[in-house]
Amino acid sequence: MKNLILASTSTIYGSKYLEYLLPELKIFFKNVNKITFVPYARPSGISYEAYTKIVSTAFKTIDIEVNSIHNCKDKQHAIENAEGIFVGGGNTFVLVKELYDQKLMGILKASIDKGIPYLGTSAGSNIAGQTMQTTNDMPIVYPPSYATLGFIPFNINAHYLDPDPTSKHKGETRETRLKEFHTYNSIPVLGLREGSWLEVKENKIILKGGLSARWFQKGKLPIEIGSDKIVNYKS
Amino acid sequence: MKNLILASTSTIYGSKYLEYLLPELKIFFKNVNKITFVPYARPSGISYEAYTKIVSTAFKTIDIEVNSIHNCKDKQHAIENAEGIFVGGGNTFVLVKELYDQKLMGILKASIDKGIPYLGTSAGSNIAGQTMQTTNDMPIVYPPSYATLGFIPFNINAHYLDPDPTSKHKGETRETRLKEFHTYNSIPVLGLREGSWLEVKENKIILKGGLSARWFQKGKLPIEIGSDKIVNYKS
Repeated sequence: MKNLILASTSTIYGSKYLEYLLPELKIFFKNVNKITFVPYARPSGISYEAYTKIVSTAFKTIDIEVNSIHNCKDKQHAIENAEGIFVGGGNTFVLVKELYDQKLMGILKASIDKGIPYLGTSAGSNIAGQTMQTTNDMPIVYPPSYATLGFIPFNINAHYLDPDPTSKHKGETRETRLKEFHTYNSIPVLGLREGSWLEVKENKIILKGGLSARWFQKGKLPIEIGSDKIVNYKS
Repeated sequence: MKNLILASTSTIYGSKYLEYLLPELKIFFKNVNKITFVPYARPSGISYEAYTKIVSTAFKTIDIEVNSIHNCKDKQHAIENAEGIFVGGGNTFVLVKELYDQKLMGILKASIDKGIPYLGTSAGSNIAGQTMQTTNDMPIVYPPSYATLGFIPFNINAHYLDPDPTSKHKGETRETRLKEFHTYNSIPVLGLREGSWLEVKENKIILKGGLSARWFQKGKLPIEIGSDKIVNYKS
C-alpha cells in the first residue's frame, strides 16, 4: 500500500529544519531504523555531504539513521531495499535531471508503489505529482522530461503563497502562474501552504497541518480545501 | 548596428501598460511607422488578439501601428522586413517554445544583428540573453532548448526583487535562486528591477530608468550597478 507524507516545506518560519514535522515523522517511520536520503535537489547549491549532515541531525532526534544515496555504490539497490525514503527540497529541475541521469525514476516509483514509506518536502513533494511543471524553481539545468513519479493524480505547488493585496510588484502572482499552466495543461494542482502536508495511504489523500489548501482546475475558479479533509480529486 | 531596449517589465505600479516607457520609445522608434509584435508569451494565458489590442492601444499614443506576427502568413518575412520589433512579456517557456516551433529564432537573431530596432519587456528581454534559464516563470510547456538570442553576453533576471527582511515565507529568495543557477552555470546575470531597462547600441550596454541593478557572477558576491552606468560585463 502506498504510504507517503508530502510536505510543502521542510522548515517553517521560526523553527529548525523539519522540527514542525518530527512528531508526525516519529509515527510515520515508527518501524524504520534507517532511511535512504536523496539529496539531489541541493537547496542553495549546498553539497550532498552538507545536506546529509543537516538531515541526519534532524532525524537523530527521533532515533533514525540517515543513509544518503550519494554514498551508495548500488543506488538502485539502496532504493529497492530502503526501510523508508526521504527526498529533500531544493531545485526541482536539478532533482529531476539527476533522478533521470541515475536511472532512478522507475525504481523509485516501483518501490513506493510496493509500500516503502516516502517522505517528500518541497521539490521532493513536487515530484510525487504527475509532472514537475508547477515548481517555483528556476530552470538551471535541462531535464530530459518533466514527467515525474505520479504517486498522486494531480500536481503540487509547494510553498503556495496567496497574492499580497498591498504589493506594488508587477511580476506574476502564484495564482496567475497556475492559470497560465492551465492554459496548456489539464492536470489539477494543489497549492500547499507552508506548514501543510498530504498524508497519502494508497488512494486516500488527506490534507494535514491545520491550514487550508488551494485547488486549481482548468477552466474553473480555484477553491479552498479544509485541513483534515480528503482531497477529492475526482470532483 | 544592434539597437535594443530591454525592459524589466511592461508596466510599473500605478500606471498603464508601457506608459512609463513611452517617452523613451517615441525616441527609440522615431523613424518607425509600424512595428511587428510577437505576442507568443501570452501573459495570464491571454489570446494573441487580446494581447495585440492592448499593445496597439499603447503604441497608438505615439503614432505607431502594430502588426502582430500571428496575423502574418509569412512570419519569417514579417521579421526580416520589420521596421521595428517588439517581443512582449508573459511566460518565457511558452515564448521560447513557439519561437523554436515557428523556426523564428535564427531569423530574429539575424534581423536584430543587422540593426532592426528591438524592444523586449520581461520575457521579451529574457530571450535577449544567452539562455532563458534565469526566468521566473513556470515550466508550463517543454521547449526544445533553453538557448536564446544572445544579443547581450549575459542573462537577465526580469522583475528582480530584493529579499524582504520581514518575510516569514521559506521559499527561495531571488538571490538564492540565482546562486543555485551559478552552481551549474557560469553566465553572469543582471537582476533588473521594475522600472529599469537596458539600452543596447551594438556592444555598449547602459542601464537606464533611475534605479540600480544587481549583477551576479559565479563564485563572487553580487554587486550593484548604478543607473546610467555602462554594464561592464568584461569585469
